[in-house]
Amino acid sequence: MNNEKKAVPFVVVKRLPRYYRYLGELLRQGVTRISSGELSEKMGVTASQIRQDFNCFGGFGQQGYGYNIEKLYNEIGAILGLQHGYKTIIIGAGNLGHALANHSKFEKRGFTLVGIFDKNPDLIGTTINRITVSPMEELEEFCSRHKVDIAILALPKSAIDVVVPRLVGLNIKGLWNFSYTDIEVPPHIAVENVHLSDSLMTLSYRITQTNQDGER
Amino acid sequence: MNNEKKAVPFVVVKRLPRYYRYLGELLRQGVTRISSGELSEKMGVTASQIRQDFNCFGGFGQQGYGYNIEKLYNEIGAILGLQHGYKTIIIGAGNLGHALANHSKFEKRGFTLVGIFDKNPDLIGTTINRITVSPMEELEEFCSRHKVDIAILALPKSAIDVVVPRLVGLNIKGLWNFSYTDIEVPPHIAVENVHLSDSLMTLSYRITQTNQDGER
Repeated sequence: MNNEKKAVPFVVVKRLPRYYRYLGELLRQGVTRISSGELSEKMGVTASQIRQDFNCFGGFGQQGYGYNIEKLYNEIGAILGLQHGYKTIIIGAGNLGHALANHSKFEKRGFTLVGIFDKNPDLIGTTINRITVSPMEELEEFCSRHKVDIAILALPKSAIDVVVPRLVGLNIKGLWNFSYTDIEVPPHIAVENVHLSDSLMTLSYRITQTNQDGER
Repeated sequence: MNNEKKAVPFVVVKRLPRYYRYLGELLRQGVTRISSGELSEKMGVTASQIRQDFNCFGGFGQQGYGYNIEKLYNEIGAILGLQHGYKTIIIGAGNLGHALANHSKFEKRGFTLVGIFDKNPDLIGTTINRITVSPMEELEEFCSRHKVDIAILALPKSAIDVVVPRLVGLNIKGLWNFSYTDIEVPPHIAVENVHLSDSLMTLSYRITQTNQDGER
């Protein structure tokens, strides 16, 4: 196995979280080995795609024997950087921020929510998932004291231009952006934009295909 | 140009919503033509990838002249099936359902929200984005009267097993599933699962890469 992890193409990286989820489920079910054929059937991906993807980071597969699930799970987690553990804050305690704060799965993946911020006086001081909503004035002091890694932006577009520049100077490593707007940050900060409408458009495509098939 | 739209590989389809968004923005800015090189720079995808993708559905490009943005935008929209227009309901009026109901972009893409349902008496009768939350008892009658196409499942895992079987008999065409659990439906119903943790894991990967780069 090699450690040239930078060589994994991004198109493969985008598929890794899904593999990671499936392998995690198998582990919880007590399964220890799986063939690419079985994994293929479970995930609806071709076995050859799976083999190609796993070859990008050293292979693992033994012909006719299958993959060691735990090893593969840990290796994929390491490529994704999940072993680091991240301290996160949510900015915006509206409905979306609220929903994200209550999403327990993130914690399991190593993302620990340490703070929630809002500028709305009605929300400041309320508690979501055991965390008290703090005023925006405390953002800088909080991030430096808690060494926050990731800020989750559950904000409207209009607030982004004010909030993002404040975050840039705070040693934040990544922004998870739900504002549906592009943001500009220096290259040392990673950004992942969530565009829910992309997923809805994919559903529209699936509906079109499903109905065409049905009519034949 | 051919009408063999079924030939577009799904890996290309998954990229279409993003092209669609970018082209829509360009149209709104009054741009009428763009080269694959310029589009490549804007989107952070290689120009050769863009050309390959667009070739899947007939090409369009004229060497040294660029793409007709409006034509391309409409063609991609048609492949995605957006011209059909869809009536949607949200099941689950909690924080997530609330956030989704207030997301105005969906309407622009042809997804019209016609109803919101919940079983919580405290939420029934309240109004979100001009729509009154209905009790679950009215689901069947409502779907058949309004010819609902898509149900958005903003429900906890525990509610899924009760709600999904009720939806199956209602001529619903697609489910947009935010329950973080796999659901089983007959093949005439399309399903798109949203796994927000996949996006968060991708952010973790980006952070790892960004920091490696920075240390060099």
